[in-house]
Amino acid sequence: MKRLLLIGIGAGDPGHLTLQAVKAIAAADVFFVVDKGEEKRDLTDLRHQFIKDHGRQPYRIVTAPDPERDRLTPAYAEAVEDWRERRATLYHEMIDEALGEGQTGAFLIWGDPGVYDSTLASLEMLPRTGFEIEVIPGISAMSALTARHRISLTRVARPVHLSTGRRLAEQGPTADDMVIMLDARHAFDGLDDFDIYWGAYLGTPDEILIAGPVAEAGPRIREARARARESKGWIMDTYLLRRR
Amino acid sequence: MKRLLLIGIGAGDPGHLTLQAVKAIAAADVFFVVDKGEEKRDLTDLRHQFIKDHGRQPYRIVTAPDPERDRLTPAYAEAVEDWRERRATLYHEMIDEALGEGQTGAFLIWGDPGVYDSTLASLEMLPRTGFEIEVIPGISAMSALTARHRISLTRVARPVHLSTGRRLAEQGPTADDMVIMLDARHAFDGLDDFDIYWGAYLGTPDEILIAGPVAEAGPRIREARARARESKGWIMDTYLLRRR
Repeated sequence: MKRLLLIGIGAGDPGHLTLQAVKAIAAADVFFVVDKGEEKRDLTDLRHQFIKDHGRQPYRIVTAPDPERDRLTPAYAEAVEDWRERRATLYHEMIDEALGEGQTGAFLIWGDPGVYDSTLASLEMLPRTGFEIEVIPGISAMSALTARHRISLTRVARPVHLSTGRRLAEQGPTADDMVIMLDARHAFDGLDDFDIYWGAYLGTPDEILIAGPVAEAGPRIREARARARESKGWIMDTYLLRRR
Repeated sequence: MKRLLLIGIGAGDPGHLTLQAVKAIAAADVFFVVDKGEEKRDLTDLRHQFIKDHGRQPYRIVTAPDPERDRLTPAYAEAVEDWRERRATLYHEMIDEALGEGQTGAFLIWGDPGVYDSTLASLEMLPRTGFEIEVIPGISAMSALTARHRISLTRVARPVHLSTGRRLAEQGPTADDMVIMLDARHAFDGLDDFDIYWGAYLGTPDEILIAGPVAEAGPRIREARARARESKGWIMDTYLLRRR
């Protein structure tokens, strides 16, 4: 059998790596790196740094270009599904070709492999042929966000909704406490009875934290977001909305 | 100034400790341990083990009994609030007495300090006098749960609701994907159009994992829960409900 490790590497701070993740990186014979192009070079670089710091020689790094995704279609779920299918084929081919019997392969995954990451779902789209999957949990962006703002994700006896910017824009707030990921459209705009706790590049030297009532902090977030995107070429951010 | 670290230590597996948490444990002069009585001795023991493994001498361990909580009242939120107030007083006293100027104190917190843990909320109930708080995120029970079941917490473009057993029992399901914590009453009973992914003592040698349709897996979970509670004296479990 072949073994495939999906290793959560945390939200950006090298200190987010768990002892289990360090051990898993050391156990890998092959690292699969999907190249997301120039704009996310920093992220790819950090992955390579983790491999260099914790990988145990001899290991190989297999790089593949990420299949293009149709980001303009209104059929979001279908576009993602189609993209995942192409990813699935790519991943399974990479594993078939690069991983020998009895060997261990690894994907290093930002945050937690279970939180809005598609690697696991892509892999599971096709029947697994001769490899077992093991998932190493990681510090998710929401854990990093609340830690850096020194707030609790949950309030006593209250639920928290985890959702996306797209969904918040469509449906409006569904709870008093919400964590929003993947929001490129400032879906928080106008939610004036909420406080917002926002963070970008969490745990990295470029980290930006902004908190306050949406009406006051919202414009500052828009500006910081635009500036950061402009200067770095990409942004990874998330926020918590909490009704006052 | 004094520095107080709230260190997330993960869901039970010593491998969940992050490099940041290891460093934070090594930086502490004083560890504050709240004794929860005989039933959770295993948990307290594991905390002491982490201190022994990663603490740097000289350090001190300050132990305090946990204030009693009224678990019979129907006024759940009020009872928790009152208990937190007494905890707050206790914590602030401990910090005042045991932590010297320029020293670093630490609480080791199961899972992630932001996810249904009351230490931060208790501390913030009283004005901070002369100490700063820093939060080190940890692997939450929900990350550990989904990793062990090799499933994703989120599905494409779908929200996830994080809630409690009490709330699920009162309101019924509010989303197709829900993580339920603190459920002593099997609030999943009767949710026959859901699959359940349940885990107890996640990441420890006593770990139990059960998954399947609620109608089929539910009774097995009830039985495993009762048996485990009986033999260990306490249980720490959580589950994901996913509509089929």
